[in-house]
Amino acid sequence: MKKKNIPSVTINRLSIYHRCLEKILETQKEEDLKIVPSFKIEEMTGINSAQIRKDLAYFGEFGKRGFGYPLIDLSRELKKILGLDKKWSVIIAGAGNLGKALVKYKGFQKKGFTIKGIFDNNPSKIGKKLGHIFIYDIKEIEKIIQAENINIGILVIPADSAQEVADKMVAGGIKAILNFAPVHIFLPPEIKIHNVDLSIEFEGLTYYLS
Amino acid sequence: MKKKNIPSVTINRLSIYHRCLEKILETQKEEDLKIVPSFKIEEMTGINSAQIRKDLAYFGEFGKRGFGYPLIDLSRELKKILGLDKKWSVIIAGAGNLGKALVKYKGFQKKGFTIKGIFDNNPSKIGKKLGHIFIYDIKEIEKIIQAENINIGILVIPADSAQEVADKMVAGGIKAILNFAPVHIFLPPEIKIHNVDLSIEFEGLTYYLS
Repeated sequence: MKKKNIPSVTINRLSIYHRCLEKILETQKEEDLKIVPSFKIEEMTGINSAQIRKDLAYFGEFGKRGFGYPLIDLSRELKKILGLDKKWSVIIAGAGNLGKALVKYKGFQKKGFTIKGIFDNNPSKIGKKLGHIFIYDIKEIEKIIQAENINIGILVIPADSAQEVADKMVAGGIKAILNFAPVHIFLPPEIKIHNVDLSIEFEGLTYYLS
Repeated sequence: MKKKNIPSVTINRLSIYHRCLEKILETQKEEDLKIVPSFKIEEMTGINSAQIRKDLAYFGEFGKRGFGYPLIDLSRELKKILGLDKKWSVIIAGAGNLGKALVKYKGFQKKGFTIKGIFDNNPSKIGKKLGHIFIYDIKEIEKIIQAENINIGILVIPADSAQEVADKMVAGGIKAILNFAPVHIFLPPEIKIHNVDLSIEFEGLTYYLS
């Protein structure tokens, strides 16, 4: 099912479709629809039916044109395509406030992400625990990524050390990085990075206020 | 310029176009293009030219069909439409880790968001400061929102008290809420709410790992 050369914008939209279907599944009653009409996904996501059909066509045939999609089947298939049916091992670089907040964030565990360790360079933090997660010396990061077969690294450290730590993560064998540091990180093309900008979350709101 | 009944998905896309233009402006050299071709925005955002033109048409006429958009003018106009040319007063409910992380987050100030206060119900926190921001008793939230004319509230408190505090924010006169609590908040229809789910940020990454 996994194909090459799928545009990354398509992957982003698959994620949006998946969340949309999950939301419908969460809120609907048992006697409700088993087939979700394309216009409902269009309405909820703002992405038009033709685009939805085109995106899904990369992965096979789902539903009937002009009719709709099988709710449970498509949701399950998207979950699989997006890799959300698997368990993922995550480490966090940075035992600061955002690191602490992420450790306590319950949403991760629920979605199959397990935090295996936190890393910091502050001697007063190393060796302690955040919740039930051990804080290691940042010098150990490469070794532990290798030993524990970690898939995803989260960067919640100051901008000026972000590149150095990202390089160590990659040297250890990490394949994907979620970056909260407000700086552009240079990585080999095969490593996936996603930059999180919390101020973007405000932009939808201020339109309505102005 | 502000119109009624613009679909919220259009507003979300305006935000995407604006970030796209800012990114072009940041990375390009002086001798580079003054007109950005529609296909470039299409390429960077994954939203097709017809949709872009349709979204922008709500707000006036920009650029020439089949040619492109004036980079600086459109960027400035979108900034204005999205309300990002103004200063906004923000309060944070919750002096926990995420609250602390948000106070220290430099991106907000840069985009015109000023944090005017933090609120908590923990007596050991009330009266202290986080960075240079004062921590008030959560009981004062309504009064201070009124007195300081606060526009936006951020909820970074446990799910079980989120609704109660949101109600107090609305009673104080807040018009928009950014909610990090993993719970659905019920609000009057005129109040805008945006729910942030940090685990969504991972979903684009796991596709490439599976």
